[in-house]
Amino acid sequence: MNILSIIANKRDKKVLSKEEIEFFVNGYTNGTITDYQAAALVMAIYINGMTYKETTDLTLAMANSGDMIDLSDITDKIIVDKHSTGGVGDKITIILMPIIAALGIPVAKMSGRGLGFTGGTADKLDSIPGYKTDISLEEFKDNVRDIGISLITTSLNLAPADKKIYALRDAIACTANIPLIASSIMSKKIASGAQKIVIDLTCGDGAFMKNIKEAKTLADTMIRIGRLAKREVRCVITNMDEPVGYAIGNSLEVVEAIKALKGDMPEDVKEIVYALGTQMILMAGKATSQVQAETMIAEVINSGQALIKFEELVERQGGDITYISNPDKFEKAKHIVPIVATERGALKTIKTEMIGNISVYLGAGRMRKEDEIDPAAGIVMNQKIGNVVEVGDVLAYIHTNDESKIDGAARNLKEAFILDPKRVAKSKPVLGIIK
Amino acid sequence: MNILSIIANKRDKKVLSKEEIEFFVNGYTNGTITDYQAAALVMAIYINGMTYKETTDLTLAMANSGDMIDLSDITDKIIVDKHSTGGVGDKITIILMPIIAALGIPVAKMSGRGLGFTGGTADKLDSIPGYKTDISLEEFKDNVRDIGISLITTSLNLAPADKKIYALRDAIACTANIPLIASSIMSKKIASGAQKIVIDLTCGDGAFMKNIKEAKTLADTMIRIGRLAKREVRCVITNMDEPVGYAIGNSLEVVEAIKALKGDMPEDVKEIVYALGTQMILMAGKATSQVQAETMIAEVINSGQALIKFEELVERQGGDITYISNPDKFEKAKHIVPIVATERGALKTIKTEMIGNISVYLGAGRMRKEDEIDPAAGIVMNQKIGNVVEVGDVLAYIHTNDESKIDGAARNLKEAFILDPKRVAKSKPVLGIIK
Repeated sequence: MNILSIIANKRDKKVLSKEEIEFFVNGYTNGTITDYQAAALVMAIYINGMTYKETTDLTLAMANSGDMIDLSDITDKIIVDKHSTGGVGDKITIILMPIIAALGIPVAKMSGRGLGFTGGTADKLDSIPGYKTDISLEEFKDNVRDIGISLITTSLNLAPADKKIYALRDAIACTANIPLIASSIMSKKIASGAQKIVIDLTCGDGAFMKNIKEAKTLADTMIRIGRLAKREVRCVITNMDEPVGYAIGNSLEVVEAIKALKGDMPEDVKEIVYALGTQMILMAGKATSQVQAETMIAEVINSGQALIKFEELVERQGGDITYISNPDKFEKAKHIVPIVATERGALKTIKTEMIGNISVYLGAGRMRKEDEIDPAAGIVMNQKIGNVVEVGDVLAYIHTNDESKIDGAARNLKEAFILDPKRVAKSKPVLGIIK
Repeated sequence: MNILSIIANKRDKKVLSKEEIEFFVNGYTNGTITDYQAAALVMAIYINGMTYKETTDLTLAMANSGDMIDLSDITDKIIVDKHSTGGVGDKITIILMPIIAALGIPVAKMSGRGLGFTGGTADKLDSIPGYKTDISLEEFKDNVRDIGISLITTSLNLAPADKKIYALRDAIACTANIPLIASSIMSKKIASGAQKIVIDLTCGDGAFMKNIKEAKTLADTMIRIGRLAKREVRCVITNMDEPVGYAIGNSLEVVEAIKALKGDMPEDVKEIVYALGTQMILMAGKATSQVQAETMIAEVINSGQALIKFEELVERQGGDITYISNPDKFEKAKHIVPIVATERGALKTIKTEMIGNISVYLGAGRMRKEDEIDPAAGIVMNQKIGNVVEVGDVLAYIHTNDESKIDGAARNLKEAFILDPKRVAKSKPVLGIIK
């Protein structure tokens, strides 16, 4: 076997064997296959496609290319992992996971850091003073055993082949391809030990999947990969044509999450939390119907058990829980600047990716991996799609510690809101459940 | 403009603009575009194709990427260039060009060196003691002015973009693609100053084009590129299902060429020389009909003028012309080993690429650029397709100075001849003329 015949086969629309895919992934990871050979193969895959079997073989080969986490020694209960394909203002993990843990379903979740217009849960948790996201695998497992929850990021070498191929795809215009996206997501989840996975598949302007058709194809592909790789996968397609909830930025989102755990949830956040939570509870075998699962979620929120679980988590991982009981303690940005409407109309479109990028510009995210984050920076939205705003109504607030950025951010932010003289319907937060 | 959008356009089957193609070629040549980005684009071109216009733009951009030779200051006569797409035993240039020069059509030809199973004219000429192929461009032009002919190789930096893309194609399984092959050939010809070009388009087992359909498509493509780039191109498709003539190897081929110029031409060599020569004479405007052109060729051979022209060339470029008048002076290989038939039958198939590779193994060619050539090494065929051979008849002779290679070469060479109990037709040396 050699890389030239593998490239030639995919170039000629042939189906690659498991052995050929493993030969490529291993060779590319260890450097015996060059970047340009990988680029040629990836382009051939992009244009000529892959079967579900090939996509699964690629997923498993990438998962096996580095460290593989085994969670089976933590508990004999069913662990259900949750993954989001990324969005703007997406603080769902921070709200949902304590709810799930409070229901007795173990939560052992690794999250990433943000890059570009999407945020990362690890960065958000880091804004809680003292909270350590980068604890060891042993501490992580101990926490899950002892209190039923741990949320960390990892320094382990998970799916290095995926990291390499992902960076290459970015440099050769091959990012937007369903089999490549699906195998990238699934390889990381499988390497981090997930057996059952609920995927929050974001869809819309502020997500990587811009339309529902693509999102459904991606969902189908991940479910099929899961089936072939013996992992149960369900997808909840959620709307990213406006930010999730109101807050965008790290401590701003944590504050919104704390309020949500206290029962004060924006409508869209609630719908998404309930939709994802229901699927997780059903997959864990803790309920037999949607209604039962929804009732269980409502109970642990109303009883305060979900909040208590979150406090346990924060305390266990070194965080200062007085910030949870009193979120006003979070340091605020020096400058909080309202953006007001200069015309009357119904809010029709929110340029969500643009808003994500403005919040990165304000310091809430990273353009490059090395960039530092300002935990207090970001944007707080004040309107949802469908709202009728009058002249002078606040559309959103800029939060920044860098005065020089206010003017630019304000000018751009204003352009992210498009009003319409006619009535506009509210947007649907959950677009579909695929399993 | 940026390379990502160019890659994405070809990925999505769009037609690239002249500016996009120039951006790629210039960026890749100067190193601002990486190998992996070029690999992705080349694979997209391979799979999604290019229009004639795109192929012409690529050709001209590659031609313009380095030195451009201008031959217009040599003469006001029409210069017709000749190019072969490569084969086994292809000594046609050495025979044809003195004929053309003897007819008063200036010959200013640059030839390459051999790599792999095909030989190079420059290596063949180098086997004439004293002959210098690497003279300066000024000397080259002077020779054409003074004696009407020069055959050299060049140290100029002709079409460096083509060199880089060619090497890359080899490493990513993208060699066998008509637009890429056509633009590679044409870019080198245009950079070396050719205005009118006759291409000997070899076709068959011992050529890069394995079948006539591909060869015709390549011919059409080069003619279309020529038309768009204002160069007149004609293609003679010749048969490479057996070696050209009998000799394969550098001095062995020169000796066969000298004999041919003295009037002793194998039948296939003669047909090819006449077919190519006729097109060159017609393109130069020296004859108005095929019959007239053929008569002119016969005359300069029979009168000895073609041989005299070759001697003038050799003398002018420092070669010892006593080798031309007496070819027995060429040093012979130490070991000349006959391969004999062990069964009776008509010669049906000659594995020509295999024979080319065996002759490289014996020292007549290069596997890598750095390899040294043994001018005396090679193979002399003793049969043509269609011949009936008896047990004990000689099929071919191995010529080598390396005794250790005899057994391996002999074993392989025998397998290159396939006999058939039935009658077999002779093969046709010229398969078509496309203009």
